[in-house]
This record gives sequence, structure tokens and C-alpha cells, in this order.
Amino acid sequence: MIERMTIPGFDAIVQAAERIAGHAHRTPVLTSRHFDQRFGAELFFKCENFQKVGAFKFRGACNAIAALPAEQGQRGIITHSSGNHGQAVALAARLNAYRAVVVMPDNSARVKVEAVREYGAEPVFCAPGTQAREEAVQALVRQHGYTFIPPYNHPDIIAGQGTAARELIEQVPDLDIILAPVGGGGLLGGTAIAAKHLAPGLRVIGAEPANADDAARSFRSGRLEPASPEQTIADGLRTTLGPLNFAVIAAHVDDIVTASEAAIVREMRTVWERMKIIIEPSCAVPLAALAENDLDIDGQRIGIILTGGNVDLDALPW
Amino acid sequence: MIERMTIPGFDAIVQAAERIAGHAHRTPVLTSRHFDQRFGAELFFKCENFQKVGAFKFRGACNAIAALPAEQGQRGIITHSSGNHGQAVALAARLNAYRAVVVMPDNSARVKVEAVREYGAEPVFCAPGTQAREEAVQALVRQHGYTFIPPYNHPDIIAGQGTAARELIEQVPDLDIILAPVGGGGLLGGTAIAAKHLAPGLRVIGAEPANADDAARSFRSGRLEPASPEQTIADGLRTTLGPLNFAVIAAHVDDIVTASEAAIVREMRTVWERMKIIIEPSCAVPLAALAENDLDIDGQRIGIILTGGNVDLDALPW
Repeated sequence: MIERMTIPGFDAIVQAAERIAGHAHRTPVLTSRHFDQRFGAELFFKCENFQKVGAFKFRGACNAIAALPAEQGQRGIITHSSGNHGQAVALAARLNAYRAVVVMPDNSARVKVEAVREYGAEPVFCAPGTQAREEAVQALVRQHGYTFIPPYNHPDIIAGQGTAARELIEQVPDLDIILAPVGGGGLLGGTAIAAKHLAPGLRVIGAEPANADDAARSFRSGRLEPASPEQTIADGLRTTLGPLNFAVIAAHVDDIVTASEAAIVREMRTVWERMKIIIEPSCAVPLAALAENDLDIDGQRIGIILTGGNVDLDALPW
Repeated sequence: MIERMTIPGFDAIVQAAERIAGHAHRTPVLTSRHFDQRFGAELFFKCENFQKVGAFKFRGACNAIAALPAEQGQRGIITHSSGNHGQAVALAARLNAYRAVVVMPDNSARVKVEAVREYGAEPVFCAPGTQAREEAVQALVRQHGYTFIPPYNHPDIIAGQGTAARELIEQVPDLDIILAPVGGGGLLGGTAIAAKHLAPGLRVIGAEPANADDAARSFRSGRLEPASPEQTIADGLRTTLGPLNFAVIAAHVDDIVTASEAAIVREMRTVWERMKIIIEPSCAVPLAALAENDLDIDGQRIGIILTGGNVDLDALPW
């Protein structure tokens, strides 16, 4: 299927913005004296933790589902995810009055299962692991004619995620740098397409956990590298880079930097304490990467996409 | 001293807003589909948890200190508080380049002592308890000529706190009700003065922990009632109503309702989970009171002042 996919252009992001308007929030941009002083720069935080379902993922899912012909959507939507993408698909399907099924590993946390149900989708359980998950999806697609909404490796997903950076650039003129986390690469890819079209001199930098640095390694080697064996607390970034996303990133992104697990937890907590907003571990990776890498940011205006705020308040990492 | 105090008018709030402009943030107003659906009303949250020092207290302290003649301020500022007011006075004094001393009980949490130091003030320790605290303040005032900035029972404090409601009414037209927590009564008093001047039909309702319900009892009996013997988790509301504040509240507030400890913790957590913002227990009291009282709010537009977000992340109440 990947052969038929092409890298979306900025027009796809404009179209995505039109499709999701009225559904997705135009999230606010916050600033923080603390971080400005620490980094000697001006930081602008695009608060996708305030987005519907608590994460930017709603943008891509909403765009991909709104792009379907109605007769296709009416046959039903399916995805696999125990995280933000599953909730995003569930809600986006409901807003279109489409039936949605979310395939989840049978060891998923109950709160995640409940969240999918609350957004109106039907959880279907499979054994943990990639193969069982994909087989479950394929069987249901064959049986019911559902349409699969992938989490990141798709032009409609990339274009939807790119609407966040487009808004940020409208909200904050004259940015020098945009930082976004990279896991599967949908957000970073869409961010780069939007940024390079609207402000070609704007540098786009991805941030990745050092423990899950396949995007950084792929960026440097020029080919898709395998996943790292280590675990990261940044659960939203445990996915490996998608091939379409890699093509976008190789073409448009300026650098990918990494952050240690300790710095991710530290900066997550600092955002909670200083900014009084809740971000999830994945969301702290750009700040952690700023803290640990000697980037040339002195006096620059830096946009940071805060990707999500879905955290288990009974299991905080401190 | 109370004899010489008079209830501030709306002009004092306008003047306060001019004094604190450029220092205090004009905080944003957030909404939440979750709470709107639950309460069958439209809720507008004025985010003073994003205010400087993380609480509305900065408004009053900043106004009171900015109102001092420079020669008086230059002799130094003093207050007693181990909480938000102490930090607010520390920062407001520093912004005026005034020296500040904060008298704190010698069993204060280290993070609170460090916060006062970080804002540039000198902590001075005394034995726990009201009497030791007041004696320590008076001795330092006599010795150094410092000016004492009270936490709530003062017209400049009330007027400063009233700027939050004035902003909220500008930001959200046609409110039917404003809810604010009540402890010492500075915020509720200032809120009522602003609201009744700008929109006489707007109902102003105070919310108080049932375990610290001296304001509710005073409101009903018409005289200042003594403190409740119980403890509340809402640490910002453990103070008793000030006499000047009581006069304002008796004149302008429509009702005071109470909330249980369990509801305070539950709504605090719900705000964290649903709105992705950090609020302290005191800040959840209006929502908890909405949940536990059968107020006539159906379809109404309700402003809620979220008072602060200073929480010990190592000691959460769940």
C-alpha cells in the first residue's frame, strides 16, 4: 500500500484544517518566564494537551475519517491502539456518526478501555504484540468492510497533524525554530511540511527519547533503522518511524536530537510545577532535548508542540 | 486599625488594575465540555492558577505594595504566610525593588521556604501559631519600620483581588453567576464589588469547605462566627473571614455554599484529568459545591475563578 502513498503538500494541510474546523480545538499558546530564563530564548508552547481527547492525535484521525467517502465511513472504522490514537479515532468516528472498533491488547489498562468506550467505540481484544494486533484488524476488515485508520503512516494523518504547526505559526509570528517529538513521525512530518512552506528559514527539529532513537539514527544514516531494544517512559513515542513519515522527515527536517529518561521525567515535572499544566512524558521530550543538547538557541523564538496530557494520575514517574 | 478601613468601591478595582498592569498576567479563560455536560450549564474558568506565583494572591499583594509611597516601600515590606500570599508579597516587593521579609512558622515545608527565597524575600522563622507570628511581625515592624501587607483584610488587597472578576466579565459577556472560593474573603469580596458594579443582575456565590465554614455561618447569622474546629485539605481556605471582608460580603454576595472534603478531592482530580491543568485543593471548592448543592444553574453561564495551582506533587491527595 505504501507504494501508492505520496508525501502530502501544504495544500493537504490547508484542506485538513478545513475538514477539522468545528471539531478540533484551536489550542492556545502559553509562555513561561521560567523556561525563557533558563534557556535564554523565547519559548512558545502550543498546547495540544488541551486538544480533544487530550492529544494532537485527534487532528490526524479527524482528518483521515472526514476524508472518507460517506458510504465507506458508514461501513465502519477500525484501528489498533491502546493510546491516544485509539481515543482519537473513536471520537472522530462518533462525530461522523460512524461505527468504530478499536483493537487493543487484552492486557490494556482498564482506564484506556473505558476511555475508548466513553468515546463511543467498541474495544475488541487481541493477544499482545504486533502480529496478533494486525491479524485481528485484517480479519475484521475482511469480515465487515471496515476502513483501517493508521496511526501515523498515511498522508491524511500527516496532513492532519500538520495543522497544529500551521496554527502555531499563525499565532506566533517570526519563529526561528519549531521542536516536536518524533515517534511514528506523523506529527514531525506534518510540522515540517507546514513550517517549510510558511517560513522556509524556520528550522524544524525533532526530539526523541535516547532509548527509542530509531528516528535519529534513520535521519543520520539515510535509511530506516530498526527499533531500539530499550524501553522509554515516553509511551507515545515507542512506535518506530513509518516509511512515508521518514521520507517527509528526510526531505524537510533539519535535525533530530535525543533526551535521556531522567531529563524527560525532570522536565515533565518542571512543566507541571511552573506552568500548572499536565503533560505526558512524551510531551516533555523536546524540553528535555533542549536541556541536554547544546543547540544554538540563544535569543531565538522557539515553538514547542506540547503533544498531549494523558497521564495515569495514580502512577506518576516521581 | 480596622476602624479606619472602608469598603473599596469599583473605582479602587479600576485603579488596582492600572497599578498591576504589566506585572500581573491577564489570565486566560478555559472551558470544558465535560463540566458543561455534567452540570447542564456553560462554565468559564478564569485561570488564576496561571497567574504569577501560581495564584490570584499576586493581584492583591501587587496592588497593596504598588499603592505605598516609595519612601515607605523603601523601608521594607513584611508579611506572614507560609502559602501563596507570602510568595506573592515576595515577588511584588522585588518588582518594586523593595526589601521583603516573610515570617513563617519554623515547621514550614522546605519547598515553601525555598519559594519565598527564590522570589527574593528573606524568610524569618517563628514558633507555629497566630500569636507567635503576630509578635514576630510586630517586633520587626517596630525595629525596622517595615510595612505589613495583610493577606486579605485590607481595601487594597480586596481591590486587587477584584481585578480577576473584572477581567473575567470583560472576557466572557453575559455571565449569570460567578463562583469564587472564600477563606479570608479578599477574593470573594473583590469579586462581588466588581460583579455588582459591572452587571448588577449577576449572582455572586461563595464556596467554602464544609469543614471550614465560618464564612457560610457568618453570612447566615449576620455576625462574624468563629472558626470551625475541623481541618480541611483546602489549605488556602483555612483562614477565617476578615471583618472588612465580611462587611463587603454581607453587602454584595448572594449566597455561600459548602463542599465536603471528598468532593473537593474528587473535583480537583477531575479538573486535572479532563482539563489538563493543575489546580490546588482550595481551587476545586466551587466545583465541589456545584456538585453537592442543588443550585438553580440549568443552562446558565457560570464564571468560576480557579484560584491557584500550587500543589506538592509528592503528596497528592489520591
